[in-house]
Amino acid sequence: MVDFNRIIDFFENLNIPENMLNRGQLVLNEFLNPIKILFEQRSVPSEPWTDEQIEFLLQTLSNMDTDKDKNAARVGEREARIASKLQLKTSAGFCHGVGRSGYLTAPQPKAPGGSIMYVLSNYLARNILKNFGLPNIKDAIVVPLCTGMSLSLTLGALRSNQSEKNLNFKRTVLVPQIDHKSLLKSIDLMGFKSKIIGGKIFGDAVRIPIEDIAANLDDECFAVISVTSFFPPREHDDIKEISKFAQEHNLIHIVINAYGVQNPEWMKIIRSAIDAGRVDAIIQSTDKNFLTPVGGAVIASPIKENIKKISQTYAGRASATPIVNFLISMLSLGITGYQKLIEEQQQNREILERKLREVAGNVNERVLDIFNPVAVALSLENLKEEQLFALGGALYNLRVTGPRVYNPKEKAFGTCCSNYITPYIVMNAAIGATEKDIVFAVERFEKAYRQIVQQ
Amino acid sequence: MVDFNRIIDFFENLNIPENMLNRGQLVLNEFLNPIKILFEQRSVPSEPWTDEQIEFLLQTLSNMDTDKDKNAARVGEREARIASKLQLKTSAGFCHGVGRSGYLTAPQPKAPGGSIMYVLSNYLARNILKNFGLPNIKDAIVVPLCTGMSLSLTLGALRSNQSEKNLNFKRTVLVPQIDHKSLLKSIDLMGFKSKIIGGKIFGDAVRIPIEDIAANLDDECFAVISVTSFFPPREHDDIKEISKFAQEHNLIHIVINAYGVQNPEWMKIIRSAIDAGRVDAIIQSTDKNFLTPVGGAVIASPIKENIKKISQTYAGRASATPIVNFLISMLSLGITGYQKLIEEQQQNREILERKLREVAGNVNERVLDIFNPVAVALSLENLKEEQLFALGGALYNLRVTGPRVYNPKEKAFGTCCSNYITPYIVMNAAIGATEKDIVFAVERFEKAYRQIVQQ
Amino acid sequence: MVDFNRIIDFFENLNIPENMLNRGQLVLNEFLNPIKILFEQRSVPSEPWTDEQIEFLLQTLSNMDTDKDKNAARVGEREARIASKLQLKTSAGFCHGVGRSGYLTAPQPKAPGGSIMYVLSNYLARNILKNFGLPNIKDAIVVPLCTGMSLSLTLGALRSNQSEKNLNFKRTVLVPQIDHKSLLKSIDLMGFKSKIIGGKIFGDAVRIPIEDIAANLDDECFAVISVTSFFPPREHDDIKEISKFAQEHNLIHIVINAYGVQNPEWMKIIRSAIDAGRVDAIIQSTDKNFLTPVGGAVIASPIKENIKKISQTYAGRASATPIVNFLISMLSLGITGYQKLIEEQQQNREILERKLREVAGNVNERVLDIFNPVAVALSLENLKEEQLFALGGALYNLRVTGPRVYNPKEKAFGTCCSNYITPYIVMNAAIGATEKDIVFAVERFEKAYRQIVQQ
Amino acid sequence: MVDFNRIIDFFENLNIPENMLNRGQLVLNEFLNPIKILFEQRSVPSEPWTDEQIEFLLQTLSNMDTDKDKNAARVGEREARIASKLQLKTSAGFCHGVGRSGYLTAPQPKAPGGSIMYVLSNYLARNILKNFGLPNIKDAIVVPLCTGMSLSLTLGALRSNQSEKNLNFKRTVLVPQIDHKSLLKSIDLMGFKSKIIGGKIFGDAVRIPIEDIAANLDDECFAVISVTSFFPPREHDDIKEISKFAQEHNLIHIVINAYGVQNPEWMKIIRSAIDAGRVDAIIQSTDKNFLTPVGGAVIASPIKENIKKISQTYAGRASATPIVNFLISMLSLGITGYQKLIEEQQQNREILERKLREVAGNVNERVLDIFNPVAVALSLENLKEEQLFALGGALYNLRVTGPRVYNPKEKAFGTCCSNYITPYIVMNAAIGATEKDIVFAVERFEKAYRQIVQQ
Repeated sequence: MVDFNRIIDFFENLNIPENMLNRGQLVLNEFLNPIKILFEQRSVPSEPWTDEQIEFLLQTLSNMDTDKDKNAARVGEREARIASKLQLKTSAGFCHGVGRSGYLTAPQPKAPGGSIMYVLSNYLARNILKNFGLPNIKDAIVVPLCTGMSLSLTLGALRSNQSEKNLNFKRTVLVPQIDHKSLLKSIDLMGFKSKIIGGKIFGDAVRIPIEDIAANLDDECFAVISVTSFFPPREHDDIKEISKFAQEHNLIHIVINAYGVQNPEWMKIIRSAIDAGRVDAIIQSTDKNFLTPVGGAVIASPIKENIKKISQTYAGRASATPIVNFLISMLSLGITGYQKLIEEQQQNREILERKLREVAGNVNERVLDIFNPVAVALSLENLKEEQLFALGGALYNLRVTGPRVYNPKEKAFGTCCSNYITPYIVMNAAIGATEKDIVFAVERFEKAYRQIVQQ
Repeated sequence: MVDFNRIIDFFENLNIPENMLNRGQLVLNEFLNPIKILFEQRSVPSEPWTDEQIEFLLQTLSNMDTDKDKNAARVGEREARIASKLQLKTSAGFCHGVGRSGYLTAPQPKAPGGSIMYVLSNYLARNILKNFGLPNIKDAIVVPLCTGMSLSLTLGALRSNQSEKNLNFKRTVLVPQIDHKSLLKSIDLMGFKSKIIGGKIFGDAVRIPIEDIAANLDDECFAVISVTSFFPPREHDDIKEISKFAQEHNLIHIVINAYGVQNPEWMKIIRSAIDAGRVDAIIQSTDKNFLTPVGGAVIASPIKENIKKISQTYAGRASATPIVNFLISMLSLGITGYQKLIEEQQQNREILERKLREVAGNVNERVLDIFNPVAVALSLENLKEEQLFALGGALYNLRVTGPRVYNPKEKAFGTCCSNYITPYIVMNAAIGATEKDIVFAVERFEKAYRQIVQQ
Repeated sequence: MVDFNRIIDFFENLNIPENMLNRGQLVLNEFLNPIKILFEQRSVPSEPWTDEQIEFLLQTLSNMDTDKDKNAARVGEREARIASKLQLKTSAGFCHGVGRSGYLTAPQPKAPGGSIMYVLSNYLARNILKNFGLPNIKDAIVVPLCTGMSLSLTLGALRSNQSEKNLNFKRTVLVPQIDHKSLLKSIDLMGFKSKIIGGKIFGDAVRIPIEDIAANLDDECFAVISVTSFFPPREHDDIKEISKFAQEHNLIHIVINAYGVQNPEWMKIIRSAIDAGRVDAIIQSTDKNFLTPVGGAVIASPIKENIKKISQTYAGRASATPIVNFLISMLSLGITGYQKLIEEQQQNREILERKLREVAGNVNERVLDIFNPVAVALSLENLKEEQLFALGGALYNLRVTGPRVYNPKEKAFGTCCSNYITPYIVMNAAIGATEKDIVFAVERFEKAYRQIVQQ
Repeated sequence: MVDFNRIIDFFENLNIPENMLNRGQLVLNEFLNPIKILFEQRSVPSEPWTDEQIEFLLQTLSNMDTDKDKNAARVGEREARIASKLQLKTSAGFCHGVGRSGYLTAPQPKAPGGSIMYVLSNYLARNILKNFGLPNIKDAIVVPLCTGMSLSLTLGALRSNQSEKNLNFKRTVLVPQIDHKSLLKSIDLMGFKSKIIGGKIFGDAVRIPIEDIAANLDDECFAVISVTSFFPPREHDDIKEISKFAQEHNLIHIVINAYGVQNPEWMKIIRSAIDAGRVDAIIQSTDKNFLTPVGGAVIASPIKENIKKISQTYAGRASATPIVNFLISMLSLGITGYQKLIEEQQQNREILERKLREVAGNVNERVLDIFNPVAVALSLENLKEEQLFALGGALYNLRVTGPRVYNPKEKAFGTCCSNYITPYIVMNAAIGATEKDIVFAVERFEKAYRQIVQQ
């Protein structure tokens, strides 16, 4: 077979000067070398790859799958046959998906290349988390599911950590109030009951004291959820204390770290929690943290066995695309690129707060005093109910996407407590946002605010 | 904005003759016209689209999503930002995925184009099933999950059809023996108990009599599963009788039609079952039936409300790719293309049986007498245990993918009963397979068989 | 660097079974192996490559060019910098084009990969012609120019075959009448004079007797042109006699074989001519013969030195795309594919004649008796002048592209003689056309003919 | 047909809220609107387009060509049939190429879309030159040929400006010494004689005084060439004086502006020359000026008729790709982008000079005093002959591409005069280069220089 290391050997008598061929080989080597390093080190590359390099890797691996074998005779009922070549693009060539007989990471005999791709992706998932704040995890897996469904899967998998005889008894999950439909639904879906511990107001912030959580513990409880990243006024949980509490009472403890990887402080909180007590799994979105299209999550754990269980619990094969998307992000960013994104996020967060403080000064509102390294909340106390409603629509029309205007008097859900009285708007300076996003959003907000007030 | 219907109006004074421009407009219209018909009729096109037409549609729709809006100011935590342009290919541009707050088909305000794409896909899902054997379904949904996880989701969603007070009591699903790990796991995952009714041997075939199913009913049962497509010796269930039984005893009845759409006879069985009793949902794989990459399923129901519940039960957003893959298959095949695939499947099935009968005659084995419009089973009674084992390896080395060699004495799982004694091999002439696949597989099988016998 | 021959060595401890890895390597090898064979044999592959294989080759080679070298410091005025990644597609990555300092095939130090690509393409050009009728050529080159400009280039290059002192004297090219604007223009462009020898009518056919050509020879003549493929009523030249005549009188002899490679009979005529006398160059279109987009030609010669001169005459670098297009055609067709196309052409030519004879019988016209293995001409004697004009328009509206309706009374140019009186229509069953093209064209012609007659 | 302006009309009853649909239409409009502006204004867009927008335009236009018409019956010998879909990429779908019967800009009846594409490209060519320094040109054409072949074509076309009777007499072109092989070869190719007027040394610079050019005029001369951009020590010509001289003596005057568009000073020189006397054509490379892959040139003229002649002189059709590449560059850069590139070039030129002056100070060499807004030359007087030779090799190994090391004692060609004694190195800060290119090149040069001196 052609040896790409010595491809120029083939061209010796083509009247192309040797130094020119050597140069060609050198450039080709630079192109291919990161692939070798990836295979050897199985870690996120330090520098970004080009799209061409990524495509080359994906093409090479996907051409190991048996659906590419012209000489195969296929007499299975599922052979990764496709109707259109466009589907080679949407699947990056991994038409067999991932998983086997309901075991996500099991090698798929018809897809050696796809199997390698998935194993590598999981290595990178573990590696990126270890690099950015969680050196104390033991394993991680990329799943083709969003955060909510990942919580379902994780609960389903780890439930068996409980002794079998308890299975029929303990069906309750302790949830420090998280006003997020998908998460609540994910508990529901599994037939579990959420026991929600209401949030309390501390100044502007909403927190759920560990004492309140503890007070809600009963014999039906087998698990507790905690969160890092969330929308103000809800702050992150005191995960370290919850971790100790979980250990003490033998509860499964799952941390929802939806978009928390982007922030070292949130990651530090989790790290400490792992060290201090019991954390069974940490779930993070691939799109919110790693800039993939929607559809994947990384589930990590300080307990290797937990990841294996989660992998084995998935019932069937799955689309390879969410995995490939994660892999593409890791390769196209590299450690350097991700570090840079984190730094930009921090700068943008500062800009967002500064700009909002300026506006606050101008219009006699105030920036709420809530810890959140991504989002900032501004009071909207001068606006009446109908004005608050109008503000949302006005921002939509001004093409500001993602701000949340809340009027707790109208709807408490979202504040994570029952008695929050200050109306507010939340904006995020999330990873991947640009300074332009922030500046324009605040400008348009001020414009909309003033118009509404003047009407 | 440019009006593509009259694009030539722009070029009137470019010294290009009018009849030439008219011709250009005509050709362009032919290219674009199928898009109009799709939007108006919302049904699978009668003729195949070209890849270029499909890409044009996907590009147009995905360019309605807000992540493409250069003038937007994005301050949400999730804005479909991507790390690499390659991810536009893997997502077909639908970076926001599908779903909202755990409601799969809910329009996503940040993704008007993605929302339209999904609605259209669901229309086509319903339409293809109505066209190919299930005119009596009321709705269908494409889900970004394989058959197994789709069963979990469906069970989770329809469980609430039971009265709420029963939720904590009834946790058992009746399963006429299906030796398929993913399906069993999908019931497990939800915390349900599978009550398996063992298969019985009728000549060569394995069936589960309705009387046996009925005899296993107890107060804990809330659902029953039935299957069409499965591997010999297991035949399809008597779904009509199960349907009546389900209606009588108020059981949820889910039909696993994994790769059954390809065959009119299996589809007819389901149609009759719907008419005769209770069918809550029918689940079919998109890859096994519609030649997509692995990762999606179509769930259909004669009860519109059921599909809505299933859509609302999913916890979060999901990757759009499995949906897009289904859409691509529908557009690139068209009704004509799918009809042709079905006919080819039937011809290939005949060839497979004929060829295997020839081999059987040659080597003193026999084709087992089992109804299955996709697969054929051949006895391997002349082979000893170690020879059976060797046969599997030999076929793998000869690049025959998908045959299943069973030795019931070694492992009963797979025969769907406890006392099957004939060793056998199963081959499929599934949709999308070519005559070449069939012929080569049988030839290589005969070769391998003879070598093993002679050694 | 990663060794793709042993890529699986990297994955030994990934928990993927060895036989699965071996299988992956095997499939990958099948994918890559044709590349090795191409490099070793430098001939058109016997079997077609897939698009993915072609892209892999192009990607590998183009990644040897220095514009891909991230660590280069570029301080030339021309460094193949591009404004958009789309230009990587249109150039297949060969942004440096081909050629150096006005020597087309000179290796370009900044483009080792592009240089290899071009050398390989020229090998394939020579090989395809040797395989399909011209074993007696010595060299060939693919030029990024169409037939006409290729003739200009060839005339410019070979003129220097004349002794230098004659350069200023001999400026006339003998042209057996060829009513084709581009060819005449190509002689004009070079500042030469065409001495056209008028065609004569032989039955239905138009030929130029060698005696007439010989009679026109004068001291100013330094070259003679001959043609194979042309439109009826003009038949191919008696190239063997022209070849002898050229040798005898020391004339440069260039054969225009515009779309003649597709037909073994035309190729045989050239082969005999090479053996019998003097042929300096044979020019064939890449798009008309090898199904590339418009823009290239293959120039072949039985004299190696001639090809070198042509290569050295081109003034500057050129777009690599026409070369790449030829390479893609060769790899995607293979010898087998090209042979098949030739056979289909012959069948379609028969169908065309049969169908036109039927129509002729129906409408009292006749198929003209002219040798042409691609085209067929039908008389239009029953049509009046305005009806002939209307016929052309009618066919255009019926979307028949490519037929030529001639009324010699109105315009002699095109008949290659001065006194052709029969009006006629010419249709081609050219390589790459489908039976559907032929059948529909004849049907629509009959329809249009009848309507016009009846009006 | 579907009206993209009101695409949302189709989706009114899909349960997608109206404001969401409106938003989708708005985003789509933003995507499509630049196409409308392009069609209306036929000028380089002020802002860059995205790749997706460019692809959308190309796809729309190429889908007007008849080879995309499924219902056509094709019976021509050339119907833009292609062997592989990959060729749709390399041709951007314009498989018919450009041109008709040897008239480049003639509309091609089989390619309405391709014809529109070419007309638009020529509008943009004229527009970009008018915007960046040549408001006094009247027309321009993009040709699928590099600078050298473009000169051949232009000389061939404009020769007929001479009275016909002179055709056989005047065959000499005046060439103020330009040591560039392709250009000299392009004159040769056409059968013309270059009368080279040797360069003279003025300080460090080499110039050709107008008096010397005038002194060489004889009756055989029919044309004169002048240059702007060239390598030091050769400076640009005194084009204004040559222009007056050409007018006075009725000479065709062609300006080689190979990579001069990037610099306003060079462009100003041409503008003045046009106003002051006679300029027949100005030729500029598309790759050197506009960052396309190699293979195209823009020929402009203050005389509309000249461009028409050039278009009509080309003998046959040509590849559309060089035209498409120019169009892609124009759309992806926009006026703003090109302006920015020009400014960066100027900054990089300053950095290059400053850095080289530093090195010069360090190693006791000097920056030569030569006007050139792109390149800088540094003396290499301390190096011996073999060291000069070694320097070139060393830089190649250090991956510095594009520097020219000259030793006039060894080879005068390149200095544009016969008696230049200073050895030197030339580096360019050309358009599209980055500061990194410049800085690294100078650093590596200093490193190589020092090593060589020390050895």
